[in-house]
Amino acid sequence: MSAQHSPAVQFARNLIRCPSVTPAEGGALDYLEKLLGGAGLKIDRVTFTDSDTPNVENLFASIGSGSPHFVFAGHTDVVPPGDEADWSHAPFAGDIVGGTLFGRGAVDMKGGVACFAAAALDFLEANGPEFGGKISFLITGDEEGPAVNGTVKLLQWAEEQGHRFDACIVGEPTNPNELGDAIKVGRRGSLSGTVVVTGVQGHAAYPENANNPIPGLMRLMSALDEVAFDGGNDRFQPSNLEIVTFDVGNPAFNVIPAKAEARFNIRFNDTWSLDTLKAKIEGILSDAASDDLEWSVVFRRDASESFLTRDETLIKALSNSVEAITGRTPALTTGGGTSDARFVKNYCPVVEFGLVGQTMHKVDECVALADVDGLTAIYRKFLDDYFQEAKGG
Amino acid sequence: MSAQHSPAVQFARNLIRCPSVTPAEGGALDYLEKLLGGAGLKIDRVTFTDSDTPNVENLFASIGSGSPHFVFAGHTDVVPPGDEADWSHAPFAGDIVGGTLFGRGAVDMKGGVACFAAAALDFLEANGPEFGGKISFLITGDEEGPAVNGTVKLLQWAEEQGHRFDACIVGEPTNPNELGDAIKVGRRGSLSGTVVVTGVQGHAAYPENANNPIPGLMRLMSALDEVAFDGGNDRFQPSNLEIVTFDVGNPAFNVIPAKAEARFNIRFNDTWSLDTLKAKIEGILSDAASDDLEWSVVFRRDASESFLTRDETLIKALSNSVEAITGRTPALTTGGGTSDARFVKNYCPVVEFGLVGQTMHKVDECVALADVDGLTAIYRKFLDDYFQEAKGG
Ligand SMILES: [Zn+2]
Ligand SMILES: [Zn+2]
Repeated sequence: MSAQHSPAVQFARNLIRCPSVTPAEGGALDYLEKLLGGAGLKIDRVTFTDSDTPNVENLFASIGSGSPHFVFAGHTDVVPPGDEADWSHAPFAGDIVGGTLFGRGAVDMKGGVACFAAAALDFLEANGPEFGGKISFLITGDEEGPAVNGTVKLLQWAEEQGHRFDACIVGEPTNPNELGDAIKVGRRGSLSGTVVVTGVQGHAAYPENANNPIPGLMRLMSALDEVAFDGGNDRFQPSNLEIVTFDVGNPAFNVIPAKAEARFNIRFNDTWSLDTLKAKIEGILSDAASDDLEWSVVFRRDASESFLTRDETLIKALSNSVEAITGRTPALTTGGGTSDARFVKNYCPVVEFGLVGQTMHKVDECVALADVDGLTAIYRKFLDDYFQEAKGG
Repeated sequence: MSAQHSPAVQFARNLIRCPSVTPAEGGALDYLEKLLGGAGLKIDRVTFTDSDTPNVENLFASIGSGSPHFVFAGHTDVVPPGDEADWSHAPFAGDIVGGTLFGRGAVDMKGGVACFAAAALDFLEANGPEFGGKISFLITGDEEGPAVNGTVKLLQWAEEQGHRFDACIVGEPTNPNELGDAIKVGRRGSLSGTVVVTGVQGHAAYPENANNPIPGLMRLMSALDEVAFDGGNDRFQPSNLEIVTFDVGNPAFNVIPAKAEARFNIRFNDTWSLDTLKAKIEGILSDAASDDLEWSVVFRRDASESFLTRDETLIKALSNSVEAITGRTPALTTGGGTSDARFVKNYCPVVEFGLVGQTMHKVDECVALADVDGLTAIYRKFLDDYFQEAKGG
């Protein structure tokens, strides 16, 4: 580790070097335990289990007493790197080249976790552990996976331990282009489903004895793809559906297959509840299906409703910090994906702000070192302002 | 071997008892060598090799001199029986129960080979080896496999040996329901291809940063699927395209994939040559693709042209024999899959007539003993009429 880099950059690089593809812990939580525990935070390592999904390790760290109780939420798990040969820098090497740190998780969101850790340690060094409030870390290893053994259970566990949170920042990469672009003050909902069309297998030379399911499934999925669900509103983008896969898996050129399956995901705004949206989708599919088409749709259980946060103290403290450090006024948006904010919102007001998301989930995910230092400064100023405001209030 | 069965039934049963799943010879050609050689035919056993496929044994048998030279083409290899436990009679036992002979190859096409052998031996017994023409057997062990070391090379070899054929019957099971249904006088061509659309991978919540290839590929494949290539004609069904697979293989609901791929197969009539059909397909895809769609189509090399046999002597002799024996007028068709006739047609006029195809390639493949004897009688009468006609002409 070179001494020329800031603590935040060093933390981020160390975290990237832990191969923590969901559900692997990969050493990332061990590293945070040592880092935060060494600065005086009380560490809890909590592993959650469930019958259908892998066990996942999580970490809770806390320091201080009294109120307000601010919690930073993040994840150390990352999506798979895909074919490592496609990367110009090995995804878990943490290479730094020309002011850029490369690696899976650089922006989503080992970088964000590193920035907040650096900001919090600096704040604690300046103000001591009894600074007149509490700071906690809610770090999961199951954000990119099924999200069953992660934040949901960790929030429950924290509540059972007596923790009551007053405000939360989730450190996901919220900025589309530049640090300071956007704070997320809500999220669209998310609904996924699988559509299956069943036909009759047969030889390609005798289609009259078979029933090809592919044209029927293309018709259904085209209908879903072409619908304009709504036009959006002043707080939310229009709802959008993506067909994420379409699979038959027939290896033979001379065989008509028996089954075809496609999956979709919709990010939807507050025009819809999960119930009204499911009914809408079933209606579209019914209308598109011919009478004799054998089809079904199954919705995934991990759906989420949309939400909007209205806590002005939290939003203003973060917004002002972003403006002070970057000179830019962040938009208050609700776009993008779901995040663990959808679970946190049931416990306390939550907003999201982190790095620039452009390379997240992609080959050559990377972050500008300047952004790592900038986000650290934003978080650092936010802690000052937020706790100051609370003292003043 | 029970004496109560006709020679053709006995030959068929003996052939079924040879486990000659492609590329195994399984004793089937040894049996034919003994049977035909014993009746005075000159036997050539020819093994062909190729770098990418297994070696395959083939057999050529011939008798007589002068012209015309008639050749019967068939195969002794069979498709695998699958799970033998699914069969009510062991696939290589040759069980005869209640007037039915069971076993892999019963109709496709050890039965057909046996019928022609019985017919030819009877014809030779009645007319002697110098009957005023030639009869040959072109028997391959690579019809159900890659078809590389079979009929194609055996035809070449025979030409190099100086054999010139005047007419050919391929003994494939051409009758959909009853013996006498149909003579195949041509075959549709077959063309397969793969269409790939390339997009940009990304997170399902940020479609503006990604480019989903699935809707584009659905548009292309729908365009192919919806085209009426032609209306068919008096000798051919309309050309037909089937999309045989459509694959993305994306396991994640929250990721827009980078690539989608679909494959198609067209069975086409003599409205098209391979060249005009490829141009047509490329045109359809070009028209359906938006300007910015990144797509490609690659045609498979194993394509075949359509063909139609117009030799009235051959067709009439066979047609009349079918009618005389079965009392039914066979339809002259061109439907169904490809067969080795597509190779024979480059050397001489070729038609196809054999047993009833219903159980071919299936569990409990079987043939009615009455059909075996009926087909033998048809082939026998055909030999009389065909050579008579040649003498008269
Ligand atoms: Zn994330
Ligand atoms: Zn066959």
